[in-house]
Amino acid sequence: MNYILGLKCINCGKEIESTAGVYTCPDCGRQAGILDVVYDYEAIRKNYRRDQLAGNKDISMFRYMPLLPVDPQSRRPHLRIGGTPLYKPEGLEKSLGMSQLYIKDDGQNPTASLKDRASVIAVIRAAQEKMTTVACASTGNAASSLAGSAAAMGLQSFIFVPGRAPQGKVAQLLIFGAHVISVQGNYDDAFRLSAAAIDRWGWYNRNAAINPYLVEGKKTVALEIAEQLDWSVPDWVVLSVGDGCTIAGVWKGFQDLYRLGWIDKMPRLLGVQSSGCSPLADAFQENRPWQPAEENTIADSIAVGMPRNPDKALHAVTESHGMLVTVSDEEILASMRFLGRTSGIFGEPAGVTGLAGLMKTVHQGMISKDEKIAAIVTGNGLKDVKNAITAAGEPIKTPPSMDQLVEELKSRRLLPEMNQ
Amino acid sequence: MNYILGLKCINCGKEIESTAGVYTCPDCGRQAGILDVVYDYEAIRKNYRRDQLAGNKDISMFRYMPLLPVDPQSRRPHLRIGGTPLYKPEGLEKSLGMSQLYIKDDGQNPTASLKDRASVIAVIRAAQEKMTTVACASTGNAASSLAGSAAAMGLQSFIFVPGRAPQGKVAQLLIFGAHVISVQGNYDDAFRLSAAAIDRWGWYNRNAAINPYLVEGKKTVALEIAEQLDWSVPDWVVLSVGDGCTIAGVWKGFQDLYRLGWIDKMPRLLGVQSSGCSPLADAFQENRPWQPAEENTIADSIAVGMPRNPDKALHAVTESHGMLVTVSDEEILASMRFLGRTSGIFGEPAGVTGLAGLMKTVHQGMISKDEKIAAIVTGNGLKDVKNAITAAGEPIKTPPSMDQLVEELKSRRLLPEMNQ
Repeated sequence: MNYILGLKCINCGKEIESTAGVYTCPDCGRQAGILDVVYDYEAIRKNYRRDQLAGNKDISMFRYMPLLPVDPQSRRPHLRIGGTPLYKPEGLEKSLGMSQLYIKDDGQNPTASLKDRASVIAVIRAAQEKMTTVACASTGNAASSLAGSAAAMGLQSFIFVPGRAPQGKVAQLLIFGAHVISVQGNYDDAFRLSAAAIDRWGWYNRNAAINPYLVEGKKTVALEIAEQLDWSVPDWVVLSVGDGCTIAGVWKGFQDLYRLGWIDKMPRLLGVQSSGCSPLADAFQENRPWQPAEENTIADSIAVGMPRNPDKALHAVTESHGMLVTVSDEEILASMRFLGRTSGIFGEPAGVTGLAGLMKTVHQGMISKDEKIAAIVTGNGLKDVKNAITAAGEPIKTPPSMDQLVEELKSRRLLPEMNQ
Repeated sequence: MNYILGLKCINCGKEIESTAGVYTCPDCGRQAGILDVVYDYEAIRKNYRRDQLAGNKDISMFRYMPLLPVDPQSRRPHLRIGGTPLYKPEGLEKSLGMSQLYIKDDGQNPTASLKDRASVIAVIRAAQEKMTTVACASTGNAASSLAGSAAAMGLQSFIFVPGRAPQGKVAQLLIFGAHVISVQGNYDDAFRLSAAAIDRWGWYNRNAAINPYLVEGKKTVALEIAEQLDWSVPDWVVLSVGDGCTIAGVWKGFQDLYRLGWIDKMPRLLGVQSSGCSPLADAFQENRPWQPAEENTIADSIAVGMPRNPDKALHAVTESHGMLVTVSDEEILASMRFLGRTSGIFGEPAGVTGLAGLMKTVHQGMISKDEKIAAIVTGNGLKDVKNAITAAGEPIKTPPSMDQLVEELKSRRLLPEMNQ
């Protein structure tokens, strides 16, 4: 048994039962009728106390089982998803003149991104519903995390990718045994073909960013941040924004904890988009409804011109008294370098976009240096070596001669005698 | 204070003090005079019991502090090194007809390889010795883990790479802020230039696989396996072998636990090399001293023709009544695919070489299917996307048409109606 009371439409407020195959509000339709999972917080409060968690040796996201939309006894993949480290990197703090800066490295998940938290919910629910096959259209972290969780669970997966999909990501999918359909066309062609195939063969659909259960997986990153900070909530939680699902999930996580009385305040949210694709940040800043945007940024995981969860995301930021800001691709690359060299953490472009926005807003005085901040790195830099090379600069080239080496180091003011 | 009694030469048995700058036996020299760290097991036994670990919330390798060659109060990088998951992947077990197969996924370390466990010891000891700069020559995991730990610790690093070093690995180093010296020449040229520079400027040397303290970091993978199995030791521990340091470290870890009385038996070791570079496996099988070998394998992390720790490695395998075997590059690629699709774990070529050897020896009847096995995956497949592509095969290509998709799936016997 789980603690789900039902689903509630965020548009019209209609309450409906949580049953297999229902993902959106029947009245409001697929686009507007996003559903939210409602839990019986009263019952959870009665049966659980936050200090019971201290004795739970499972560090994965399933330590928060009462707050998850799966049955405790359901079959789960063996992968350790969640339980990622929260660091307080002194070098990074010092370089920014800050004193309470935490980095949540979600690139440490099994397939190296935060998306594992959502995909694992998809495969568990698919198996609960006796499905044997899961599917989605994606070239990114949603696809690789789905393929990884499906492999661990013994489910088949069909992943539709556009022809231009980078080889590395396709390789990850194939290694996990996904049936990868490379569609000769663009992303929309791949998406439409996947939708037709899912309809025809009744596969479990992980396409829908609107699938309300996936957000419930993503929220565990917030639960972990709160517990890792000993339930002392940060002033700001910082992360990149694409579809809007992750920031909505983070907000849901803190809301859950607040409703349970496990935390006594809510954080403010700083959502960050690339200026090459910023429909939500633009809408927020100009205080108008969002409009579709171009997808022109190196941060491919958040290059979403038509976000699927805009309302939940905008609502979360507004309700938190937060901000949505933009950064340039150059600022993203600079923050990738900066994070790596001051802390030994390697994030992909979308993974460090939150940090880039934090650096900008701190510099502009919109966030104070002594506030308590948790910034989420959403994916590992090894996923996108090409952009890392762009960010990283060039090595020092020299023939194998000490004299030449001395000259090279001297010209860069790196010669030990001169430094120390 | 730590529990180190001193260092002991594995060649002549001479005991010497553990002091800064001493890495090899002064009598036996740099090649033969490998030292082993000796602990005061009596004192550790008095002060620690294994059940105290249950209450330790630090899941990193530093939970085993009394068995590490660093002072408990020394400054440490914030990275969570160690504490990697031990899985029992049902799909993999079933496919192999085995019943007690565990996979230790050390690709989940911060820089995505087991080498983090050694490099972190190097930077802690460097800082203890008031060094500000660490250095090594490498293109692989030793280099990236050293650069990552150095960045987290606020130390400078100089990494010498040969001109042919793959861009991806160089990018990882540069992101971590290492000063990367690309030497126009081969690996030996880079190694010799690094040695000259280290001698001249007195940097902390992580080159030496013979540095006795690094093995002490690597042994923590064995401590974790034992604890994760609730101190019930596997019949076999399986891993790939290059330099010989990791397998020597694994053996040291189990020896420590046995001496403390925390385990009541020792495992057998299955060491696996690629047949393209197998000096140690050849020596073992032909019962003769080892000889230098060609380095002709895709498993670059274990392509070591002149292993630095041959004696410790051969001794460990022999003393454990274990085996050293070889597998082909094709078998390595096949095991990469097999592991990925049956368990959702993605290993680099050297990372899955152990599993390839296990599959071969089980097939040959040299290891029984009902034995309890722990196989270590030493590095993440995202580090080497090129070989993953070779292993992974091709996607299914189709125009955006359901009719064409049906044809493609039908020809591969993947059509749902035909399967279910």
